[in-house]
Amino acid sequence: MTAADHHADSPFLRACRAETAPAGSPAARVPVWFMRQAGRSLPEYRAVRGSGSILEAIRDPELSAEITLQPVRRYGVDAAILYSDIVVPVAAIGFGVDIAPGVGPVVEVPFAHAADLDRLRPLEPEVDTPYVLETVRILVDELSVPLIGFAGAPFTVASYLIEGRPSRTYARTKALMHGDPTLWHRLLERLADLAISSLRSQIAAGAAAAQLFDSWAGALSPPVYERFVLPHSRRVLDAVRDAGVPAIHFGVGTGELLGLLAEAGADVVGVDWRVPLDAARARVGDHKALQGNLDPAICLAPWDAVAEATRDVLARNAGHPGHVFNLGHGVLPETDPTVLERVVALVHDEGEMRR
Amino acid sequence: MTAADHHADSPFLRACRAETAPAGSPAARVPVWFMRQAGRSLPEYRAVRGSGSILEAIRDPELSAEITLQPVRRYGVDAAILYSDIVVPVAAIGFGVDIAPGVGPVVEVPFAHAADLDRLRPLEPEVDTPYVLETVRILVDELSVPLIGFAGAPFTVASYLIEGRPSRTYARTKALMHGDPTLWHRLLERLADLAISSLRSQIAAGAAAAQLFDSWAGALSPPVYERFVLPHSRRVLDAVRDAGVPAIHFGVGTGELLGLLAEAGADVVGVDWRVPLDAARARVGDHKALQGNLDPAICLAPWDAVAEATRDVLARNAGHPGHVFNLGHGVLPETDPTVLERVVALVHDEGEMRR
Repeated sequence: MTAADHHADSPFLRACRAETAPAGSPAARVPVWFMRQAGRSLPEYRAVRGSGSILEAIRDPELSAEITLQPVRRYGVDAAILYSDIVVPVAAIGFGVDIAPGVGPVVEVPFAHAADLDRLRPLEPEVDTPYVLETVRILVDELSVPLIGFAGAPFTVASYLIEGRPSRTYARTKALMHGDPTLWHRLLERLADLAISSLRSQIAAGAAAAQLFDSWAGALSPPVYERFVLPHSRRVLDAVRDAGVPAIHFGVGTGELLGLLAEAGADVVGVDWRVPLDAARARVGDHKALQGNLDPAICLAPWDAVAEATRDVLARNAGHPGHVFNLGHGVLPETDPTVLERVVALVHDEGEMRR
Repeated sequence: MTAADHHADSPFLRACRAETAPAGSPAARVPVWFMRQAGRSLPEYRAVRGSGSILEAIRDPELSAEITLQPVRRYGVDAAILYSDIVVPVAAIGFGVDIAPGVGPVVEVPFAHAADLDRLRPLEPEVDTPYVLETVRILVDELSVPLIGFAGAPFTVASYLIEGRPSRTYARTKALMHGDPTLWHRLLERLADLAISSLRSQIAAGAAAAQLFDSWAGALSPPVYERFVLPHSRRVLDAVRDAGVPAIHFGVGTGELLGLLAEAGADVVGVDWRVPLDAARARVGDHKALQGNLDPAICLAPWDAVAEATRDVLARNAGHPGHVFNLGHGVLPETDPTVLERVVALVHDEGEMRR
């Protein structure tokens, strides 16, 4: 029995499968969690986090598990998400990547040539990232809600490796993609393999779902995405579903790509706040679930505005059973946690699967 | 006779009006210009620009005119765009804004309270920005193609004034918008008045079209844009058209907003590279012109990839007469100018208005 079986009737997993539930039953409520729910917006996070790098914290299973649990305790969200980072696998195999405070992932020697492929050996999760698996095991014992594992999608990880630091234009990435398609596809194959190994090991250790973050795929036009990215993301998403758990796929600014993200094999398509859920539904089709999509910046406004925007998200989903309520991007560090508590309560009170 | 009348038969202005032209006539070719065509990618720009701030360069009409002319000479583009910046009017009335190299607009004391409205007095273009008008007058004498004047749209200028520096989240801006809608609308009214005064004076001095940059409007969802931004942009766009020249409206990441940008009163809707032109056409309708939308990052790839992407843009427009070829955002500083020369030649050779 997998973790997904164990929580099969949870509101979160039912919504991921877009399954209807008897009206009034607990499973008929709209589940909610928040991207970056574990993190700097929580005083209890700042209290335990210390001053080390994020990667150091991730290598400490007790600490990572505690950080993962904090928002579940405080908010009563319907799913936990593993405290980790999308560069963990590439860092673990020694590519030379770190997370600079206030900057993001930085790479010592960026990926540029075919010879750099040798720096991307396969991941052996039990050897390279035992701390991730230990964290998952602790969490599965502690949690009463499903745990979401995650990985970075090949394109987004590639963009970090090639640019060397967060970019606004992805100019080097696109130059390599268009200038040397053969090398591009070999790179993305390796990164897909890394994501698959990491996600399979997380699922085997007890993760009940997996989110593949293609955070920056929205920088690409649909024909470019379809040709250079989709086949690699599809391999990862297929591997997740073959492992028996739902696959969530998310990126920012992906309005034009929503249909392709679904086609790539996501069970649940994450939607940022720019696309109203009714428009997203029209692009994704009726058989998939959607995740989203309250604007995280609105959570800094007075409560009346937050409540109105929350109700608008629920209204635009129009009672479709495939809806996992979330923000349209991660919790902003300056967010008041009591606002998120109220959002959870509002979604649980008023969110209703009507079909 | 206005400048727009003078150039009425130019390919650029005919395309702005989505007018057909006799097949094979010069007016039937697809016009092309590039956002940020004047700037750091050109060696002749770096040679004349000196080390002063951008705002200093803008205050020197001879220099600004020369910088504006450089890409017209080199590329043979079908329109010039005034070398200026969207913060020029607010800087000219003494709001306390500068452009920090490598950062962007920074504001000494950000806008936060109703009392800050007093810092936004009306613009008197002949007194406050005489150098802008002098630059326009020099250019109108020198140019054989239409000159595009421009201004920042109320939302984007407001975001700089409120955030104090470029932002990724616009959290303070959205908090003020939702938290104090009355103050928000008063602020945007003042900023619309500034844009109107500035654009009217540029048009009176000889600009033959005007582009309203709402660069960061794509951070907003459609209902939020419609309620908090559209009415103010509409006033500016209406004023441009009342002055007898076409209004171009552009922002980045505005896929979901394209219909509303058209509805706000644009004659020409700028499209970033994320939205294929055929999809943009479906959202904007058949009677408007589109401007765009080659990915500026693709211009850093080998020529074959650039040519393929350029042809794809032309193909997706499918011969509609309302097409102004452009990039989907500004020229990247590291772009090789010879690539843009070849793009212009390719568009002029192969672009065809078939209806």
